[in-house]
Amino acid sequence: MAPGRLEQNGGTALHTVQDELHHDHVLKTYRILIADLCQQYNMGHPGGAIGMAAIGVSLWKYVMRYAPHSPDWFNRDRFVLSNGHTCLFQYSFLHLVGYKAMTFDQLKSYHSERADSLCPGHPEIEIEGIEVTTGPLGQGVANAVGLAMATKNLAATYNKPGLDIVSNHTWCMVGDACLQEGVGLEAISLAGHWKLNNLTIIYDNNQITCDGSVDMVNNEDINAKMRACGFDVLEVQDGCYDIERIIQALEKARQSNDKPVFINIKTTIGLGSAVAGKAASHGAPFGVDDVKRMKQANGLDPEKHFEISDEVRAFFANLPERGEELVREWENLLGRYCQEFPELGEELQSRMRGEIRKDWRDLIPKTFDTAPTATRVSGGQVINPLAKEINSFMVGTADLSPSVNMIWDGKVDFQPPDLKTSCGINGAYSGRYIHYGVREHAMAAIANGLAAYNHGTFLPITSSFFMFYLYAAPAVRMGALQNLHVIHAATHDSIGAGEDGPTHQPIELASLYRAMPSLLYLRPGDAEETAGAWTVAIAHKDGPSIVSESRHKVPQLHGGGGAGGLTSRDGVAKGAYVLREADDGTVADITIIGVGAELSFAVNVADELRRRGVSARVVSFPCWRLFEMQPIEYRRQVLSRHGPGGIPAVVIEPYAPNGWERYADAGISLRTFGHSLPGKYIYQHFGFETTKMTEKVVRYLHGIKDGRYIKGEFVDL
Amino acid sequence: MAPGRLEQNGGTALHTVQDELHHDHVLKTYRILIADLCQQYNMGHPGGAIGMAAIGVSLWKYVMRYAPHSPDWFNRDRFVLSNGHTCLFQYSFLHLVGYKAMTFDQLKSYHSERADSLCPGHPEIEIEGIEVTTGPLGQGVANAVGLAMATKNLAATYNKPGLDIVSNHTWCMVGDACLQEGVGLEAISLAGHWKLNNLTIIYDNNQITCDGSVDMVNNEDINAKMRACGFDVLEVQDGCYDIERIIQALEKARQSNDKPVFINIKTTIGLGSAVAGKAASHGAPFGVDDVKRMKQANGLDPEKHFEISDEVRAFFANLPERGEELVREWENLLGRYCQEFPELGEELQSRMRGEIRKDWRDLIPKTFDTAPTATRVSGGQVINPLAKEINSFMVGTADLSPSVNMIWDGKVDFQPPDLKTSCGINGAYSGRYIHYGVREHAMAAIANGLAAYNHGTFLPITSSFFMFYLYAAPAVRMGALQNLHVIHAATHDSIGAGEDGPTHQPIELASLYRAMPSLLYLRPGDAEETAGAWTVAIAHKDGPSIVSESRHKVPQLHGGGGAGGLTSRDGVAKGAYVLREADDGTVADITIIGVGAELSFAVNVADELRRRGVSARVVSFPCWRLFEMQPIEYRRQVLSRHGPGGIPAVVIEPYAPNGWERYADAGISLRTFGHSLPGKYIYQHFGFETTKMTEKVVRYLHGIKDGRYIKGEFVDL
Repeated sequence: MAPGRLEQNGGTALHTVQDELHHDHVLKTYRILIADLCQQYNMGHPGGAIGMAAIGVSLWKYVMRYAPHSPDWFNRDRFVLSNGHTCLFQYSFLHLVGYKAMTFDQLKSYHSERADSLCPGHPEIEIEGIEVTTGPLGQGVANAVGLAMATKNLAATYNKPGLDIVSNHTWCMVGDACLQEGVGLEAISLAGHWKLNNLTIIYDNNQITCDGSVDMVNNEDINAKMRACGFDVLEVQDGCYDIERIIQALEKARQSNDKPVFINIKTTIGLGSAVAGKAASHGAPFGVDDVKRMKQANGLDPEKHFEISDEVRAFFANLPERGEELVREWENLLGRYCQEFPELGEELQSRMRGEIRKDWRDLIPKTFDTAPTATRVSGGQVINPLAKEINSFMVGTADLSPSVNMIWDGKVDFQPPDLKTSCGINGAYSGRYIHYGVREHAMAAIANGLAAYNHGTFLPITSSFFMFYLYAAPAVRMGALQNLHVIHAATHDSIGAGEDGPTHQPIELASLYRAMPSLLYLRPGDAEETAGAWTVAIAHKDGPSIVSESRHKVPQLHGGGGAGGLTSRDGVAKGAYVLREADDGTVADITIIGVGAELSFAVNVADELRRRGVSARVVSFPCWRLFEMQPIEYRRQVLSRHGPGGIPAVVIEPYAPNGWERYADAGISLRTFGHSLPGKYIYQHFGFETTKMTEKVVRYLHGIKDGRYIKGEFVDL
Repeated sequence: MAPGRLEQNGGTALHTVQDELHHDHVLKTYRILIADLCQQYNMGHPGGAIGMAAIGVSLWKYVMRYAPHSPDWFNRDRFVLSNGHTCLFQYSFLHLVGYKAMTFDQLKSYHSERADSLCPGHPEIEIEGIEVTTGPLGQGVANAVGLAMATKNLAATYNKPGLDIVSNHTWCMVGDACLQEGVGLEAISLAGHWKLNNLTIIYDNNQITCDGSVDMVNNEDINAKMRACGFDVLEVQDGCYDIERIIQALEKARQSNDKPVFINIKTTIGLGSAVAGKAASHGAPFGVDDVKRMKQANGLDPEKHFEISDEVRAFFANLPERGEELVREWENLLGRYCQEFPELGEELQSRMRGEIRKDWRDLIPKTFDTAPTATRVSGGQVINPLAKEINSFMVGTADLSPSVNMIWDGKVDFQPPDLKTSCGINGAYSGRYIHYGVREHAMAAIANGLAAYNHGTFLPITSSFFMFYLYAAPAVRMGALQNLHVIHAATHDSIGAGEDGPTHQPIELASLYRAMPSLLYLRPGDAEETAGAWTVAIAHKDGPSIVSESRHKVPQLHGGGGAGGLTSRDGVAKGAYVLREADDGTVADITIIGVGAELSFAVNVADELRRRGVSARVVSFPCWRLFEMQPIEYRRQVLSRHGPGGIPAVVIEPYAPNGWERYADAGISLRTFGHSLPGKYIYQHFGFETTKMTEKVVRYLHGIKDGRYIKGEFVDL
């Protein structure tokens, strides 16, 4: 199919009586197939997939530009199934249209015991033809916004007249729930604001969720709401059968001039089953008898399963070749582009390969000033030069530009080019600084979409206060689950945030992120460590990182980068490292572990201990996960806790201690929420003064000697 | 002020020239006061509070029904400052209208070093006159929805013709950001759906956030959006000065018949300062010179600070007595009510005192069936009888009624009485089962609002899959921070959730909730422990609890409630307890710690170890925080790890191990995300089979003997 098919047909009736017979048969077959697939293991979600059958035919047979045999074709349309529990919808079409990995056997492995099934309970990014992992509702909408932004940004950066190298469309399928979840609503507002006319949200309006009819929880005028949010709205009344009108709406949406489009398509969940239109069809198979009845009603053999006729196969058979044709056309275009614009062409191709310029590390300052500096300021010094120079960096913030220091000299905002703001800061689609508004969850989920566009083509960076990465957490998690390369710059990361008070002080949040698989949670202690943390995060291509920075100034322990410094960016890469051994080669009495904004506290306590005749080593411990990756010999050497000559370790961190028990014997930490006090008072308030902490350590050492503390039993000091 | 003041004035001009002079002077004084309060310590958020001055005068002087000297008066209007960073707005009015705790000295302690300041950086519930702690944006809207629901529910349950005992209004102040955050948008949808005409959202429309003008991130038609969501919309153009029109709008909103009202009030942030209308006025003081200039421009002495004239004092002086009059009127009404309806009156008064019926424990089953049962099913058996009988229980779900088992026989939905749903399940405001839709974050924040209405008058219970309490986490946290009594029933709490896959399997989420102060995270292992967990959660009045339940059937270890059972509800109350000592009084070789859905795994491994000649004790460990509250002697006895005769402990839990290092020496846990496999295969897939786990334990014991493992070093088996 060539683009603009509707035009070629004069915008009128686009199929014949023969087509209609085909469609009828295809829809029947498809719906029975879904029922069979759920019935097989008596599990799964049949209703939504069945209701959306005609939408699927319209998309995969007629409208979407993709190539089953070149699933990673760069300029393919992106499809996001935000209502991910209807995954069979996508798996079945991937199979029918000829994706090689999605064999018939694979399709039939849905909810089987096969650990290598390509049909998990929700779509997963690792599977050929799946763009993003979905399931947690609403996030797919935000992912789709990110995918559409990626196209806009690449197009504005690279396309030339007659050479639209990047021109793909993003289609996002949503159910009722995605329009209820806050993250979906946040993303919708942004899509409207950004005028993402290359994004279409297709609403499977079946008015049913798990609990019953949607009017139990929603009676809003969704079309009016979407229009108010900057969308054009199209409607299709008979979404179960009217493929022609669905195609018309989809094509119209693709050609939208200046707005994203919301297509409200009325469907019937579980169409044809005994529970059609009811919540019962959502998350459970229909039962053997009903599936038989459905087959009979459709003139199929009730004893046969997974029947796909030759006619149905033939209906979809053209799609792989059509796809390859699209790929060839595009490759020709790219060839011409690279001839005409060799430098841009090289840059674009490098980004397609997911490369970052080889000398990126050289853009990071080698030395830093020794004056006390907030690590959020150091973070800016580290990342701004890279963001300025490297086009793949898409840096955004949830309305905290003045706080997070992510703005580089000459940055241009990602904005629709015709936007005129009253504060006079306008932008362009080629801009790479993103104002997300106060929408942390959508920010992180959109960043996932940007990263998922093509591995390494973008490096999305988000920023906010660390505490508000709790709002963003479901999306940060999805980034980790998908091994997406996203970096979150999280400032104000301790009670040092001060007078904003306990609502803004992240006592327990690090416990979540330190436990989250694939993610690096990095707390650098000064500028040098901040350089190390960002270096690690940029190199950590297989997952997200959180660089956790202080609001307040912290002493610099790097000695200006020359000799005599304690901190080391290379040390950060190992997760933890010895900042200082005991003096003169003596065996220390204790190890003090320092972290992030409070790293200097550990050094101060060690100094004070020395004055009191106690010999202390100091370990800096910015990242647990990186440390766990080190050989055990290294880990034992750094901690020096166990075996002959082992000494106890005390960690200082004003967070919940949970998990430090692995690395320390005692902790000076926080087990309550914080308090609203200016930075200079808050540490005192919670006893994080050198003298008090030193006394605690001394008492602890006495307690070990007199048997009050038993070795191996973690002590909260 | 009597209610319906506008009517008394014939709905026309409600004040005289004299009033206008007063207002002008009061507004000037108030705005300069805010500027001074921020300038004093060169910190704080002046702009919003200054912009909202006229709204504040309208509310506290004219419209709101409250009693400064009876701050806890049950039927007071509730005011929520969702844009909590403008806290000075509220603190200043609390002072001016005569709240006793908010002395002038206290007001001036904003951002001082006083740890006992009643003016923290964001409003806190502990402060007289503050209804909920706010700061994390958008949540206040949801809290306000909960507060308004509380009124609706009490009114529908107790009010009688002519005896409107509960009739208060809820006012929620929002800034631009609260209308961007997803949780705010979720709550708005629900407020519209529920037709909460006793809720008014007052929009401080200053079109400025931290990054600049709102049109950088939002160009939507907010009035149209709110109308689409079921709100009536009123507008005030000159929100800086036009007190009369603001009062008219507020009074009109209070009298709304069938919809919540959104009042869009245009204001100027930082009015009168050099940075008026600019982002710079949001979060930083104006500077000494500008504050001086502001004073001069307003005819005040530039050298004087915190000036409040006698005239201004006099303007607000009537409010305490007016408030007491309202209280007396209401107390008379209550007296009549209790005479006419003694039983209902007694129940209501008991709920006002925050009491729950003394025999509530008797409603919990004493014994349970011994057939394998999912703990989510047991949870229903435990809680349904209480929810049925006790009017304070407000049980809701984020669209997972078929999964969470929270419906009791005869439950009535909380719904507008005129709502007719297409699935035929209607309701009433007196209903106590809440369909929140797929809006986990708003659900938890609304539950906080219900709980905050009056301590103990409601016990809100929410329910969803455990994984989606990550969506809800920011609100669960705010409940913990405010010590609100809310219970979250979190089902599908392990990889046992099965085929839904890694998006639904909460590997790392418990790490967050176990670290969260004030909150109890409880993982019961069978029906008996589920009874224990709910008992603890209901008794834990000073904070939220999460009862974490399995989707799948688990073996019952309680022996039917008679002798011979292992599990014990009283054991749950201690956080952890010995399920089984070694046989025949011998000293065990090892302790196996079991938890929740996998508790039986520990028992099975211990049995298998015994067959292999290894003697094992078993400890059940449903709740860390409860265990930490026990005396050290008890904790040492349960764990038996340290000191002479100490033996190692291995924990079995398919979660991230972080934090178990405090209680165990080794763990069979998960450090990756999960996988989509049906329940019966998923445990196998990750090695949680009795034989494999037993072998790991045996190898571990060998490893200790041969020195491969060093004592005290946690081992991931």
